[in-house]
Amino acid sequence: MEVRGIHHLGVAVANLEEAVATYQRLLGARVESREMLTDQGVSAASVLVGGDRIELLEPTGDDTPVGRFISSRGPGLHHVAYAVPDVAAMLRELESVGAELIDTHPRRGLYGLQIAFVHPHAVHGVLTEVVSGG
Amino acid sequence: MEVRGIHHLGVAVANLEEAVATYQRLLGARVESREMLTDQGVSAASVLVGGDRIELLEPTGDDTPVGRFISSRGPGLHHVAYAVPDVAAMLRELESVGAELIDTHPRRGLYGLQIAFVHPHAVHGVLTEVVSGG
Repeated sequence: MEVRGIHHLGVAVANLEEAVATYQRLLGARVESREMLTDQGVSAASVLVGGDRIELLEPTGDDTPVGRFISSRGPGLHHVAYAVPDVAAMLRELESVGAELIDTHPRRGLYGLQIAFVHPHAVHGVLTEVVSGG
Repeated sequence: MEVRGIHHLGVAVANLEEAVATYQRLLGARVESREMLTDQGVSAASVLVGGDRIELLEPTGDDTPVGRFISSRGPGLHHVAYAVPDVAAMLRELESVGAELIDTHPRRGLYGLQIAFVHPHAVHGVLTEVVSGG
């Protein structure tokens, strides 16, 4: 499986609008899209910094994955997502080399993408996502 | 100042060789370069995942910035670096909008680059680096 590169960097934030404004002011970011994903407990904004994408994620409540992350560690870098041609095939490859997965099958992520998360245990503490499609 | 995009993603690891092997096995990463920076207390490997760069950082001791990071939070995502045309000019721009800086002047980073760090307080908990040159 060819990994194409970083699809986005996921950042946990306490206040989405303040974070968007900061990325605009400091880094000249442009807002690409916004989406509320109630089932995943996040309100998200994709911003482009130059040619690269930062996904700012505000939890919809404390008892959500991103809410618990912020409660325990504070806001900050949350995950890195890599673009792959086919998430399902990538998951089979990762399983074949013994990588611990959070999602054994693709699910729908933000913006209709196919996504799956690899457990941080498999990647030296980095929550890692694989993404395909659109 | 135009920010060109992500220059690299910095990842704190406990064992550099194990981490390099993991990125190769799971993500098809290729090693771009290695460097020991004793003054910054890291042994580093740059790996390319597709077209993007991950900088794996093993501390040379517990009493180093990356060593303290791992002691308090464990290994994982450490910082994000953005490519800019001119670090010194970028720092003046960041100061002009009130961003708290760690480095008020550029210093030498890995691989001879000009770098400076922006305080996480300024970027919602994300340790942010700006990079130029080569």
